[in-house]
Amino acid sequence: MNAEAIQKDTLSLMNTICDIGAATAVLNWDQETYMPHGGSVTRAEQISTLSTLMHKMMTGDNAKKLVDAIQQDANSKQHPLLRLFVDEYQKAVKLPEDLVKRVSKAQALGQDIWKEARSQKDFSKFASILDELLTLKREEAECRGYVENRYDALLDIYEPGATVSHLNPVFDKLRDATSIILKAIEPVKHTVHDKPMQQFFPGDAQMAFSRFIADKMGFDFSRGRMDLTAHPFCTSFTQHDVRLTTRINENDLSSCLYGVIHETGHGLYEQGFPSEYARTFAAEGASIGMHESQSLLWETIITRSEEFWEFALPHFAKQFPEQAKGLSPRDMYHAVNTIQPSLIRVEADEITYNMHIVLRFEIERDLINGVLATKDIPEAWNAKMKEYLGITPPNDAMGCLQDVHWSFGGFGYFPSYTLGKLYAAMEWKKIKEDMPNVMHDIAQGEFSGILSWLRTNIHAYGKTAKPGEIILNATGHPLSEQEFVNYAYAKVASVYGVKPG
Amino acid sequence: MNAEAIQKDTLSLMNTICDIGAATAVLNWDQETYMPHGGSVTRAEQISTLSTLMHKMMTGDNAKKLVDAIQQDANSKQHPLLRLFVDEYQKAVKLPEDLVKRVSKAQALGQDIWKEARSQKDFSKFASILDELLTLKREEAECRGYVENRYDALLDIYEPGATVSHLNPVFDKLRDATSIILKAIEPVKHTVHDKPMQQFFPGDAQMAFSRFIADKMGFDFSRGRMDLTAHPFCTSFTQHDVRLTTRINENDLSSCLYGVIHETGHGLYEQGFPSEYARTFAAEGASIGMHESQSLLWETIITRSEEFWEFALPHFAKQFPEQAKGLSPRDMYHAVNTIQPSLIRVEADEITYNMHIVLRFEIERDLINGVLATKDIPEAWNAKMKEYLGITPPNDAMGCLQDVHWSFGGFGYFPSYTLGKLYAAMEWKKIKEDMPNVMHDIAQGEFSGILSWLRTNIHAYGKTAKPGEIILNATGHPLSEQEFVNYAYAKVASVYGVKPG
Repeated sequence: MNAEAIQKDTLSLMNTICDIGAATAVLNWDQETYMPHGGSVTRAEQISTLSTLMHKMMTGDNAKKLVDAIQQDANSKQHPLLRLFVDEYQKAVKLPEDLVKRVSKAQALGQDIWKEARSQKDFSKFASILDELLTLKREEAECRGYVENRYDALLDIYEPGATVSHLNPVFDKLRDATSIILKAIEPVKHTVHDKPMQQFFPGDAQMAFSRFIADKMGFDFSRGRMDLTAHPFCTSFTQHDVRLTTRINENDLSSCLYGVIHETGHGLYEQGFPSEYARTFAAEGASIGMHESQSLLWETIITRSEEFWEFALPHFAKQFPEQAKGLSPRDMYHAVNTIQPSLIRVEADEITYNMHIVLRFEIERDLINGVLATKDIPEAWNAKMKEYLGITPPNDAMGCLQDVHWSFGGFGYFPSYTLGKLYAAMEWKKIKEDMPNVMHDIAQGEFSGILSWLRTNIHAYGKTAKPGEIILNATGHPLSEQEFVNYAYAKVASVYGVKPG
Repeated sequence: MNAEAIQKDTLSLMNTICDIGAATAVLNWDQETYMPHGGSVTRAEQISTLSTLMHKMMTGDNAKKLVDAIQQDANSKQHPLLRLFVDEYQKAVKLPEDLVKRVSKAQALGQDIWKEARSQKDFSKFASILDELLTLKREEAECRGYVENRYDALLDIYEPGATVSHLNPVFDKLRDATSIILKAIEPVKHTVHDKPMQQFFPGDAQMAFSRFIADKMGFDFSRGRMDLTAHPFCTSFTQHDVRLTTRINENDLSSCLYGVIHETGHGLYEQGFPSEYARTFAAEGASIGMHESQSLLWETIITRSEEFWEFALPHFAKQFPEQAKGLSPRDMYHAVNTIQPSLIRVEADEITYNMHIVLRFEIERDLINGVLATKDIPEAWNAKMKEYLGITPPNDAMGCLQDVHWSFGGFGYFPSYTLGKLYAAMEWKKIKEDMPNVMHDIAQGEFSGILSWLRTNIHAYGKTAKPGEIILNATGHPLSEQEFVNYAYAKVASVYGVKPG
């Protein structure tokens, strides 16, 4: 095969696989948004069939022939899309087809059962399918392979190279910093409160305001939409069709607003991949951690600044005139930056949030290694919540059933959220250096400069570069927790008027 | 291969193909209901990829091996699902993969362009893609083969065995009957009017009332849902997930209400296939004509009876108290049975409706045979509307752009609607014989007896029997237009108080 034929055939196979992947994503989106309950069993079959088919194509004779040809041709080997194809092939051939099929089927069922269990606040209803997912994921970890810890094989799916032994020291430093911050604010914590966000906000108006902010951030609604689901998510069928979802709590604007901002951050990344990457493996985030850096940069850093509320408050007041009475940007800044141990991860403040991740990381690691039994999850969860944050969930829906991740077997995913915070803090430092007027821009509701920086320095790569390479090119530094700690200390000083440490 | 292995492998292949078909149907449904405009190009690629894949599986070495094995085994040959598989294989191998791919891609684009052209009331915007679809469909007709007329090859897709030469005499008799009826009512047509349906009805209340009726008819909303689209349709992913759509005209309840009833008739058929047919080719209507008989029996016969409005009027009055003032069931009976030449097929009365079909049949036949040029469609359409119904569309959206069918290349589909009327009238005659109290049941809002009759005599077959076989078993007679003509004359006599003929 000559280089041209290799490229043409590989792209064609990648296009087919990506189209099937997109169809699977539509089936999943529909299942979460509009599918009637009765469709769940046959939907699981459909998703399983498509996943099996993708896996077959990714590991079949044609793929093998192309991979061999790429590896024998010096030019093809350097082509970013072909190199990515070889990487994905090598990962895929590690998993037997039968396992992929069983995992896919259990995932689809798991999500349905989780929703039911969560609505009934009863972990025991979810335990059996979760146990099945854990057994399958242990089997998968063995197939993928690891050096030190079985859980490393799963961490690697979401953040290439992440290991238990690498994460431990990072998490230790973050735990120390959290403890220092909580101690520092203890005497003054009554001075900052979130009452402005804890009023009655009608659902429709919440959606309208959140949509306005998403639009301002640059989300292109002609290439995307927003719906309601039990758990917010962002999914992309191509960069031309990106779907956000959110949920509404009429007594707390944060859940919807910052949920939408978070998913919009993901959505901007998905909409930002170069056109020529459409229908290839390159039209994806570099890693889940890098993806989270995009959502968290917007959700925790940009839109929780006082300058953001200078811009947003008049629009908030238009949508919620009664609720806005007497509020200043500084009041809103305080309201969205209270630090307070709480039960729900996605609604946690940006400081105690990391403790939610540590808890899940430890439980997952122990489940995958067989140290913790599935049935003991609620007890372990509640004990760790008590130990790390001093609070106890009143029921499983507020505790171990709150996240969708385990229902699709996404063990190893959670640490990415904290890695995302570290990347985001590093990106933010560089953005401020490159754009000295950025805080002024934010106060004007002008976000196109930030989006443009992200498009150039992060989005343009898609999946053609590793996250470590991207963050080094973008900021000049390798991954470290230091910028996040600096940022957190500065935020605490600004909000609470105390100097941590 | 032994009989057991043949059955197992054939079912497994059928399951895979049906799952991919279901995914394609979800992609289509999403495109019509919720997809952002920007997604249309890549959605067309996705649908094309899945369709190609299905065709490959249906015509590949594995399918051929199974078909050969089935044909060599006397028992397997008699098995209804295996026999159906052989039939579908033989149809599919007639179409080259490349053609299937091109058709599928043009279909997806066609629907998008049609929507745009329709909203702009401009046929010229649709002409180029329609011309492409016609060229592809002529090519397809040649591949499928025919004896007398190229259009027969396309008719056969929707109604096995239907031909131009068979349809001509049937359509002649219906045209005569229509003419007799229009003549008979001419002197008294002022005595019947549809004002009760032509009031302002808020959209939400229309949806609520229509949903109530669909529910009463027996549609299972735990295995289905209802959304809004440009053109109403029913699609099924399995019998456990059936989607209806409708549209709203706030100045005319008929469009939404009878649209929903029509699609619910289809939906009941889809939900009524035996469980063991799930994920096989048997979980389909016997033909489009038979499918239409299910929608039209409910829409034109059952729910346009005076007894239906005896039941429905109090519920109508609850939803629309102002609009219901002074109305009797007989007023509603008149309002939904006015006979009046009109522009829009789906809103036409059940008598002049057939003229809409004759018009489309003639245009399609001439387009496929190259006798009529694509660009001349609006002129031909408007001339025939004038000739058959005495009216002229004010624009293309009210004329040749009104139906979705051509946008997906569905030439040959329209005659099925009239065949559906003939089947429905035959079924109705037998239902009344088998259930002497059926009109009383309808007046009580009790439809379960009718549904049960349909489940047993029509739905239970799925696609395992031919429509001719089903109608003969169910009614004791082969297809004929006579029962429809009898029914139409009786209806006219009852509504207008005149005796046609």
